[in-house]
Amino acid sequence: MLDFGQEIMTRLETLSACSEAGPGVTRLPFTSEHRAANGLIGDWMKAAGLSVGIDAAGTMIGRREGTGPARTLLLGSHQDSVPHGGRYDGALGVILPLVVLESLKDEELPFAVELLAFADEEGVRFPTALIGPRSLAGTLDPAVLDLEDGDGTSLADAMRTFQLDPVGITDLKRRPEDVIGFVEVHIEQGPVLEDRDIRLGVVSAICGIERWSVEITGRAAHAGTTPMELRQDALAAASEAVLAVEDLARRTDDLVGVVGNLNVSPNAVNAVPGKVDFTIELRSGTDAVRHAAGEALSEKIDQLCAARGLAVETRRTYSQPAVQCDRALSDSLQRACKASGTDAPILVSGATHDASAMSDLAPVAMMFVRCKQGISHHPDESITAEDAAAAASALQTFLRTLSDTKRLRP
Amino acid sequence: MLDFGQEIMTRLETLSACSEAGPGVTRLPFTSEHRAANGLIGDWMKAAGLSVGIDAAGTMIGRREGTGPARTLLLGSHQDSVPHGGRYDGALGVILPLVVLESLKDEELPFAVELLAFADEEGVRFPTALIGPRSLAGTLDPAVLDLEDGDGTSLADAMRTFQLDPVGITDLKRRPEDVIGFVEVHIEQGPVLEDRDIRLGVVSAICGIERWSVEITGRAAHAGTTPMELRQDALAAASEAVLAVEDLARRTDDLVGVVGNLNVSPNAVNAVPGKVDFTIELRSGTDAVRHAAGEALSEKIDQLCAARGLAVETRRTYSQPAVQCDRALSDSLQRACKASGTDAPILVSGATHDASAMSDLAPVAMMFVRCKQGISHHPDESITAEDAAAAASALQTFLRTLSDTKRLRP
Repeated sequence: MLDFGQEIMTRLETLSACSEAGPGVTRLPFTSEHRAANGLIGDWMKAAGLSVGIDAAGTMIGRREGTGPARTLLLGSHQDSVPHGGRYDGALGVILPLVVLESLKDEELPFAVELLAFADEEGVRFPTALIGPRSLAGTLDPAVLDLEDGDGTSLADAMRTFQLDPVGITDLKRRPEDVIGFVEVHIEQGPVLEDRDIRLGVVSAICGIERWSVEITGRAAHAGTTPMELRQDALAAASEAVLAVEDLARRTDDLVGVVGNLNVSPNAVNAVPGKVDFTIELRSGTDAVRHAAGEALSEKIDQLCAARGLAVETRRTYSQPAVQCDRALSDSLQRACKASGTDAPILVSGATHDASAMSDLAPVAMMFVRCKQGISHHPDESITAEDAAAAASALQTFLRTLSDTKRLRP
Repeated sequence: MLDFGQEIMTRLETLSACSEAGPGVTRLPFTSEHRAANGLIGDWMKAAGLSVGIDAAGTMIGRREGTGPARTLLLGSHQDSVPHGGRYDGALGVILPLVVLESLKDEELPFAVELLAFADEEGVRFPTALIGPRSLAGTLDPAVLDLEDGDGTSLADAMRTFQLDPVGITDLKRRPEDVIGFVEVHIEQGPVLEDRDIRLGVVSAICGIERWSVEITGRAAHAGTTPMELRQDALAAASEAVLAVEDLARRTDDLVGVVGNLNVSPNAVNAVPGKVDFTIELRSGTDAVRHAAGEALSEKIDQLCAARGLAVETRRTYSQPAVQCDRALSDSLQRACKASGTDAPILVSGATHDASAMSDLAPVAMMFVRCKQGISHHPDESITAEDAAAAASALQTFLRTLSDTKRLRP
């Protein structure tokens, strides 16, 4: 038997060389680094007995047929990275299934399998992302092809330079009835598994996200000559709001919340802050929980500003619903983890993934692999070979035993 | 009798024309605007029957002798402004006594009077201030003569261009036994008198100031994937600190405090804040109160950060003791206000003034004049002619009746 752990780590190291210079991995979509990565992935797909192609959205696809008339199971993740990111985010979800499929090269499976290496999940080159999965799901707005990167190159031009025909992306939509589901393996990008000393987790939902913009207007004043009772201190009110967000998120199951960005004006040592703007971000696997929290916080902040005689504007600037993972596929993943020696807990994914967009096409499921200190999007991103081996073993078992989803047969 | 209010407002308007272009008044020391202002002030001093001179520090001095062997009473304030400031800050304390002295031109007083128009209180051109009063008090460090303005001109060179002999500043020290005291009239630069609907106030002390620098270090983390209980949110801790400062200052007599400057890192909507630095400024008329508050807050912040498992550094970066005003002179001022129809309350000055530096030479006292909305250092700085008249009438009475200070006779 292949040493899954070592093989996966070695290939990820090899793949990480497809990067711009500098610390960590910098591999943006439709670049020479992307081309080099696709070259490696294509070679490895062939070695795993897959037939290899690339679609109009730049997704590398390796396919093996099934023995029967079953639908197709989709596996995969993204090949791209953030600037100076790590070698595991995305790439693990391509390389790990690849190695597993290679181990099953001479075994028959009743269903077809496609391994997908998407071009762009991070969305750092163009102000859009998830072009590959959205094309497959038929949810891509072709207008994004006109969006430009920092150098003024449009997405369409970048794709053409990459020898793709961007017009073709509108023809990529798959028929839901052809697909069993999409299963994505990914590093956790959070500290929960490490904190619980567990190698693997199975995702119940990819959280929904909403963002609020808050601007509190008090009155800037001389911090020496203005008595406390005559102040309208916008930062004191904002501080109450920061703590209200933290308190509500701590008290509410399946909710995280943060004030991540906060700016003070005039921001001088001897001036009572006249204005503070800040953001609130809330995430939950349950949209109703998130929505209620947003409304409650907006009301709470209105009240605490009113109590101080301050003006406030709160505005929801962004809202993205949660994606529920498929129960049957997730149960199968959890059983496969158990069979491979890991009692994988159910987690909510706090980050968005390719699976988020794929959920518009088919049932999705995700397996998380523990990562060191939860660090991601950083050169220090790290997993162990043992954890990779456990995940590969679980995925292998999953593929061998997948039978109890009603979607298996057409 | 002279219409004090109208006369003062008219002269202040005339003087405000000695300004760089742009909104409000911009009159920096040792400039052509300063020269123009000194020209007006000198002419008005002569008209008030004063003998006029300028000392090596650029202080315009108008003097009248007394009838007896009494010491000299010093009056005055500064002629300079901040960039785009108002026409009352400083200038009122020159023009108002000038008009009052003119009204007493033909009356004898038992003591000599000098009216001082200092060159630089604001300290915006050179990184120093209070050259005039410090020279009189003998507390000026001659090294400041080498300090340069934004154009690279040294203070010494600027003074020479202004036809002054900077070497002479070391000879300006007055003998304390020659001086009765220094009395400064100034706009309040705060909202207390307006809030209480009173024209005038008498200052009991010029507050001491201390500043702290605080840096809280938590751990920046993904705001989606990090559960609340595993976060080390530096902004949440800083928010508790902001509210602790406010709470202590509200609960403590003769103390104001503020967090005026606060900066978040990485300051991104989807990142748990890993680091926050902020300032604390505390002011009190009583040094012991201020000092105890600083120590208590430093300890409190240490505790609240420890409770969250965060690292924190707190450091006192600046400390300036309070100046107590002279009880006898202040009582005389208060009685004079009352005789002129204003029951002037006792206030602590939250800002530094020329009187702060003059206190190293002699007893000091200050009278505050109500200003609109507490606005100062801004073109909208504003007082009424009626309030100026009340202050002038009070100062006139003060000069006519000053007799009960032991310092009057040598």
